[in-house]
Amino acid sequence: MEFHVITDGKQTVNELTVKLKMLHHDVDYIHIREKQKKASDIMLLVSNLLQQGVPKEKLVINDRFDVALLHNIPNVHLPGHGLPVEAVRAFDTHVRIGRSVHSLEEALRCEEAGADYLLFGHIFETNSKAALLPRGVEQLAEICERITIPVIAIGGITPSTIKMLKNVSVHGVAVMSYVMASSDPIAALTNLKEGGYHAKTI
Amino acid sequence: MEFHVITDGKQTVNELTVKLKMLHHDVDYIHIREKQKKASDIMLLVSNLLQQGVPKEKLVINDRFDVALLHNIPNVHLPGHGLPVEAVRAFDTHVRIGRSVHSLEEALRCEEAGADYLLFGHIFETNSKAALLPRGVEQLAEICERITIPVIAIGGITPSTIKMLKNVSVHGVAVMSYVMASSDPIAALTNLKEGGYHAKTI
Repeated sequence: MEFHVITDGKQTVNELTVKLKMLHHDVDYIHIREKQKKASDIMLLVSNLLQQGVPKEKLVINDRFDVALLHNIPNVHLPGHGLPVEAVRAFDTHVRIGRSVHSLEEALRCEEAGADYLLFGHIFETNSKAALLPRGVEQLAEICERITIPVIAIGGITPSTIKMLKNVSVHGVAVMSYVMASSDPIAALTNLKEGGYHAKTI
Repeated sequence: MEFHVITDGKQTVNELTVKLKMLHHDVDYIHIREKQKKASDIMLLVSNLLQQGVPKEKLVINDRFDVALLHNIPNVHLPGHGLPVEAVRAFDTHVRIGRSVHSLEEALRCEEAGADYLLFGHIFETNSKAALLPRGVEQLAEICERITIPVIAIGGITPSTIKMLKNVSVHGVAVMSYVMASSDPIAALTNLKEGGYHAKTI
């Protein structure tokens, strides 16, 4: 099971550099999702991480495809209101494109448009989407069945909820606050993996 | 004298499409500066403008170099906290790079870094920068003297203030609210040009 960590937009460039340097060995992908930060700060953060030895293959730039291009980062993640998948794919046949989706219809459309993987959620209740009903494991299972590219589950993933994914052929999970807001991110990741890592082999 | 119009971030994609289609014949450059809009909306706005016959050579994309690349727009304008000039220039030797600057030191640094022109301001008092002291015509004149690439004056440019630039070898002016907030943008542009167009031939 693939583990993605997504930055929570609540930390400074220096705090993120320290934390991500510490945990990059324990995850497959780190998404730089800093919607409030200016482009210069996102560029600086990526520079710092590369200097600290984080492999560029593990970095995923959310929304700012230009930052990915300038730093030669091979992965971009497009939010629902971001750049169109088709346009990014037409410009660059090699970049790995992820896309956030919230329904089966959207998932099918983005797969067709050329996305390499999808982030679907939110699966469980989460403070960051408190006003919205979670989409639940059932809808996730249906999407995983109908979509051929990898589907990553996001939203409210914790050591207790991750167990509920054991009968779903999901490719991985993405976590934000459970890891990023933790005072011990490595322990948080270990707890998650003990809950979910052996749940299902894809 | 070159005339730049900069969108004010206060209008919808449709409003901007209508207004910019109307005025593009009367300006040299239109800067798409929509900091609050999502990438999908900026992409849509640029698509609309191109469909309506606005030449891509007149469009300048503020901050989002990725939008410029995906639409093959040859001009990007980098705000002070945007992508570094050096990084954009290293990636793309052809794109025309503008940069906002607020001091002579910054202007010299950005010229050295590979910018093609500079936007310096704000020159006069303006509501959009009410808390800051205007930099004035004198500092503008010094910058125009020391910098070899074109310098465009921005901030509080109106038919009365533009007259004060007549002894300054400034390459052009950029206006936002005086044109974009006007109920008759074409008349606003005509008024500006009557004030400033013949002030000095560069």
